[in-house]
Amino acid sequence: MDLLVVGSMAFDDLETPFGKETNVVGGAATYIGYAASYCTDDIGIVSVVGGDFPQEVMDDLNSRGVDTEGVQIKVNEKSFFWSGRYHLDMNSRDTLDTQLNVLATFDPRVPQSYRNAKYLLLGNLTPTVQQQVIEQMTTRPKLVAMDTMNFWMNAMPTELAHTISMVDMLLVNDEEARQLSGEYSLVKAARKIQAMGPKYLVIKKGEHGALLFCQDQLFFAPALPLEEVFDPTGAGDTFAGGMLGYLAKADDLSFDTMKRAIIYGSALASFCVEKFGTARLKALMPSQIEQRLQEFSSLVSY
Amino acid sequence: MDLLVVGSMAFDDLETPFGKETNVVGGAATYIGYAASYCTDDIGIVSVVGGDFPQEVMDDLNSRGVDTEGVQIKVNEKSFFWSGRYHLDMNSRDTLDTQLNVLATFDPRVPQSYRNAKYLLLGNLTPTVQQQVIEQMTTRPKLVAMDTMNFWMNAMPTELAHTISMVDMLLVNDEEARQLSGEYSLVKAARKIQAMGPKYLVIKKGEHGALLFCQDQLFFAPALPLEEVFDPTGAGDTFAGGMLGYLAKADDLSFDTMKRAIIYGSALASFCVEKFGTARLKALMPSQIEQRLQEFSSLVSY
Repeated sequence: MDLLVVGSMAFDDLETPFGKETNVVGGAATYIGYAASYCTDDIGIVSVVGGDFPQEVMDDLNSRGVDTEGVQIKVNEKSFFWSGRYHLDMNSRDTLDTQLNVLATFDPRVPQSYRNAKYLLLGNLTPTVQQQVIEQMTTRPKLVAMDTMNFWMNAMPTELAHTISMVDMLLVNDEEARQLSGEYSLVKAARKIQAMGPKYLVIKKGEHGALLFCQDQLFFAPALPLEEVFDPTGAGDTFAGGMLGYLAKADDLSFDTMKRAIIYGSALASFCVEKFGTARLKALMPSQIEQRLQEFSSLVSY
Repeated sequence: MDLLVVGSMAFDDLETPFGKETNVVGGAATYIGYAASYCTDDIGIVSVVGGDFPQEVMDDLNSRGVDTEGVQIKVNEKSFFWSGRYHLDMNSRDTLDTQLNVLATFDPRVPQSYRNAKYLLLGNLTPTVQQQVIEQMTTRPKLVAMDTMNFWMNAMPTELAHTISMVDMLLVNDEEARQLSGEYSLVKAARKIQAMGPKYLVIKKGEHGALLFCQDQLFFAPALPLEEVFDPTGAGDTFAGGMLGYLAKADDLSFDTMKRAIIYGSALASFCVEKFGTARLKALMPSQIEQRLQEFSSLVSY
């Protein structure tokens, strides 16, 4: 298996300055799965859903080479639910409601056929759940990447630090990098975070792009200035999924490949925000992706 | 003359998280003059100072090829004074005090020898003063660039719109672009602002870089992630001065040259913030600038 993904599969109620939609299928693993499927058709998901999660989404993912054997279905329970409202500045949002439901007791089980996956992406989840997945791998993946968020920095700092020490790559946003390191300068923050374990650090800055710290090398991936950001939900997961999908397909961890991978993730994320939920992300043609990659290239070439 | 610069020459009291300094020599024209002098030694300044402004600074600028014949000295008055405090997020600042002093009655006089300058940079000033300078030119410069700020959008919107309609290039920050256009999306904002007159628009995003809109082409210049931003005062002026100095020296307005010019301005601005006032900016070696330009290049090359 090229890529194993762990993360939520969920429903979101979303409110943006452009409209409101309820019961939108989302969750980190959903976005990551769709994004990575543009690079490889050898992906597995470990997750948990309730009886309410649509079988069509599973079927759709399966048809793209995303295996869902690792998705536990608890028929008498409800899927994870999140509701949020975005402001005009789409970098900030208010959480209106969070219902853990099946995630409250999530005991991840990695199917036998997933345990030799070459690349592992731990979507934002309880750090202990992320650890359990790493521990179930038979062979150490070539790269273990991990997303997390400020919530875990406050709620479980010790467990989080332990999980971070086990991974090769950490993905956080700029505020989270500052909180985690206690440093305002992102250059200093990166140095401290890398000293906690991860050789590679990706600092996501939303509409301001992303920084990639590879040992002592630095790369900046711009975000494409967009006419309209319709719904930023899932953009970070799409970015991570595109990046890891690209790396898993290339099966190479050179700095050059890492750079192309982060640009690829940025390109997919730039599509994701154009419609609510996964609508835009799951309807991409290879030629559209190629054209967007060209736009990224000309945006910064001189 | 390659470049004519109009702007304040002033004293600043500065407070940043790293310290406090009083009576620091500053002002838009001072920063612009120093920055542009790394590209060309054929620059003139139109400004006004009081009897308190240090002759050594004039001498220093003159020695770099920055002519100050156009700087009026009102011996019995005081120079413009600004006092501000920066927060940890150096993108935001509080103005503690503003004393217009000599600027209150500034009647710009462009010396005869400046009136055929090939490039003209109007630093942030009263829009009517900016207009008066354009009107005193004997030949229309190849490029008239203009900086402004939100203060004028609120205080003199009609005069500002008129001045904007007379220039080829406008430089504003992202918030100002939004305010001026009434559009949140910078892509949409740029389209509206370009329809007001300027063919070229530069949107400065501080630590997040800058966008260059050239007719229907778009370029993004990153900011260099820095270990420490010591004092951001003058960074925007240094950026503009480096950019216009580069253009004036190259004497070419192709998109390729514009891109290199904005990177050059970004590089000089990245030095400017490393010390209080103009201290770092005025002490640069060509090899240091060259090395920083290399860092910018490798930051975004893939």
